[in-house]
Amino acid sequence: MEKITLNSPFDMHIHLRDGDMLKLVAPLSSHTFCGGIIMPNLVPPLDTKEAVVAYKNRILEAIGSDDFTPFMTLFFKPYTKEFLEDVKDEISAIKLYPAGITTNSEGGVSVIDTEALAPTLNAMAELNIPLCVHGETNGFVMDREKEFMSVYEALAVAFPKLKIIMEHITTKEAVELVQKYDNLYATITLQHLFITLDDVAGGMLKPHLFCKPIAKRPEDKEALLNIALSGHSKIMFGSDSAPHPKHKKEACGCAAGVFTSPIALQVLVELFETHGKLENLEKFVSQNAIDIYKLTPSSKAITLVKKDFVVPEAYEGFGEVVVPMYAGETIKWSLEK
Amino acid sequence: MEKITLNSPFDMHIHLRDGDMLKLVAPLSSHTFCGGIIMPNLVPPLDTKEAVVAYKNRILEAIGSDDFTPFMTLFFKPYTKEFLEDVKDEISAIKLYPAGITTNSEGGVSVIDTEALAPTLNAMAELNIPLCVHGETNGFVMDREKEFMSVYEALAVAFPKLKIIMEHITTKEAVELVQKYDNLYATITLQHLFITLDDVAGGMLKPHLFCKPIAKRPEDKEALLNIALSGHSKIMFGSDSAPHPKHKKEACGCAAGVFTSPIALQVLVELFETHGKLENLEKFVSQNAIDIYKLTPSSKAITLVKKDFVVPEAYEGFGEVVVPMYAGETIKWSLEK
Repeated sequence: MEKITLNSPFDMHIHLRDGDMLKLVAPLSSHTFCGGIIMPNLVPPLDTKEAVVAYKNRILEAIGSDDFTPFMTLFFKPYTKEFLEDVKDEISAIKLYPAGITTNSEGGVSVIDTEALAPTLNAMAELNIPLCVHGETNGFVMDREKEFMSVYEALAVAFPKLKIIMEHITTKEAVELVQKYDNLYATITLQHLFITLDDVAGGMLKPHLFCKPIAKRPEDKEALLNIALSGHSKIMFGSDSAPHPKHKKEACGCAAGVFTSPIALQVLVELFETHGKLENLEKFVSQNAIDIYKLTPSSKAITLVKKDFVVPEAYEGFGEVVVPMYAGETIKWSLEK
Repeated sequence: MEKITLNSPFDMHIHLRDGDMLKLVAPLSSHTFCGGIIMPNLVPPLDTKEAVVAYKNRILEAIGSDDFTPFMTLFFKPYTKEFLEDVKDEISAIKLYPAGITTNSEGGVSVIDTEALAPTLNAMAELNIPLCVHGETNGFVMDREKEFMSVYEALAVAFPKLKIIMEHITTKEAVELVQKYDNLYATITLQHLFITLDDVAGGMLKPHLFCKPIAKRPEDKEALLNIALSGHSKIMFGSDSAPHPKHKKEACGCAAGVFTSPIALQVLVELFETHGKLENLEKFVSQNAIDIYKLTPSSKAITLVKKDFVVPEAYEGFGEVVVPMYAGETIKWSLEK
């Protein structure tokens, strides 16, 4: 049977939530990855060393094994250099959200003013702490990311020594920009390699494919797919896997987020194989992240076999129910038992 | 108290469904209008004289009063002139759906081939039967209407004596095109004067605002609003009010359609008043339709008073529950008791 082994796969953008949802999704998310960048948008957001360490411990407890490293992040606010020096060893990045732009981002910064943010960003550059950015304005939903490109440019130019990660990019404009400045990098989710707005709202309305940034146009998906498949050294896999309870996703006024962690690797193998680019998959899911974040890879390796895998209709536990992308559908690759 | 009386308001695009849903919505839809163009996309679609007459009778029975005239339509297929002569007195228009484009449109024509459709369209032109068109391609959801403009142009040029109604237009391109050819006219819904894709998917996902054609960009809404408020003689109000059961709208994979009939007139008065254009409202909801369709207006007049109207959370009856647009919100104008 055909097999492929991926060494130390990383998910460089992941939401593990807290409480019962954390208990359900942490093992599902860590099963096929050796580590991941953990997003800090809890309520309240993670903005102290104590909160970061406590959350990390809750994550490790929920995972229940030591073969997954949660790389913690702080929620961006103006921080002093002293604070950053103190917290530095506990975090891998700081995540900036424009206020109100996604789940639990109300405490984010309301205007991206490079001058006001300069003390914090300069300190981060000196201390080699990367800045992860949710790059959307408050504009019209299809334009939000495109409109944010000027902010990325301003940041890239003003802070040339700061590593800036354009998170979950969804447009051809972002694909172009990330290649233009040395200090820009990007993550791409699973769903944005597959869907456009057509899949969300072109036929029936599909809440389980509704996420932020919203899936864009066919030419955007094409650009994302091309750069991911190429194994481009600035592009990392970051699932943005974002579980919401089933009853909330399927209710009127559903929240944004697609849950992909437990199926991501299987689907990626199928995708890269279909396009004849399997040789680039390890760059996308591991090597680029190691190089960009200067990670020490673990010895965890995941082997997948070419055998049908029927995605569960839902994952349940601890009183929570979460529906994954491709629920009930068949993927051509499975995890080796 | 401020008052306004609207003479013989018409809803020139309305879905009354059938069975229990018809019994619930027909009285709600006919309450504030003196007549309306009834869409033929039942299962099976209305494509015989007998089916049209029988449906008309079911509608009249469901309404239970004689102060609303259902103007019936046929589902477009290639028809002979003899057939059209025979059915002519029972219909006000024929509605063309590209196949599979909206609820129950699977039997529509799959390619808009002006030559193949010529015999039917020429007969319609001779018999003065207007053609109503759902103008969307099968393309990317935000482009479907724009891409259809060339089809409208081809029809307008090839059949100069045929009255062509561009139904529920949603783009600035359609607003421009309707003014370019003498034989093009258009309807505009209530929701497309108020919402963009932002309202459907910019924050939480809002199934009750999900419709086809999908709400477009801010500049599109602006163009629609401007031409409607101007009272432009080629523009008619057509609600496209499309009830779906609450449990289906709020389920995963919800169907397209916004239910607006019982609140449309109140909301339109508030809208036209806000913009200082109340003097044009009767053109939009009555006079233009009378002129375009050569209707004989009834003596029905609806008086509204400037008094708060709290939109019901749902309309219920006959085992059906339907959620209207603006459920639970307050409109500044009410129907006079």
